[in-house]
Amino acid sequence: MADRAIVLFAHGARDPAWAEPFKRIKCLLQARQPGIAVELAFLEIMQPSLADAIATLARAGHASIAIAPLFMAQGGHLKNDLPKILDEIRARHHGVELKLLPAVGDVEPVLDAIAGWLVGAMAR
Amino acid sequence: MADRAIVLFAHGARDPAWAEPFKRIKCLLQARQPGIAVELAFLEIMQPSLADAIATLARAGHASIAIAPLFMAQGGHLKNDLPKILDEIRARHHGVELKLLPAVGDVEPVLDAIAGWLVGAMAR
Repeated sequence: MADRAIVLFAHGARDPAWAEPFKRIKCLLQARQPGIAVELAFLEIMQPSLADAIATLARAGHASIAIAPLFMAQGGHLKNDLPKILDEIRARHHGVELKLLPAVGDVEPVLDAIAGWLVGAMAR
Repeated sequence: MADRAIVLFAHGARDPAWAEPFKRIKCLLQARQPGIAVELAFLEIMQPSLADAIATLARAGHASIAIAPLFMAQGGHLKNDLPKILDEIRARHHGVELKLLPAVGDVEPVLDAIAGWLVGAMAR
């Protein structure tokens, strides 16, 4: 069965408005796939943490959960911090399969959408 | 005349591989618009700075330069740091018009491309 639960994982910031794009992506995703369970989670400052978001979905009975790192690029946060966080989560949720998706900056159609937007923005 | 010069402005990180998505966006943009002048610039750690990238384009004769903040969302870096940096740059380049584009996370077609990718990734 395809995953029906996903966590949108972002960095976090002090300004509450910072989270708006991630809430918007959650809405767009649920509009395309109404039955899906979507949680936001943050590495720093904002709540919930990734561990809390996974726990919420696991309690709701999801045995397979996708994690989408909504970072523009892969630096220390995704290469060093995230694997440790995932190890801790896996130790707590043995029956749950966690499927880590690539970072936004590694997804060619998204980079192409950015390039297309830039061409349009410069023509205006 | 539409802008023919753009700076792709990203955060920066210690890992050189972090810059790859931005280099890829530069390639995709130049593939769509071969005559365009594209420079990368970084807020922290990586070089060149935004001021250096703008100076390069100004020296090449560009009188109108677009700046695209390739950040997932607008926090303190874009709301507080960037306006100060732009003020300093404007003071040095009086004849150059700087056109600030929205952050990636404020561009609906890009958010929609992310949502579309997530739907596809979860179906696999």
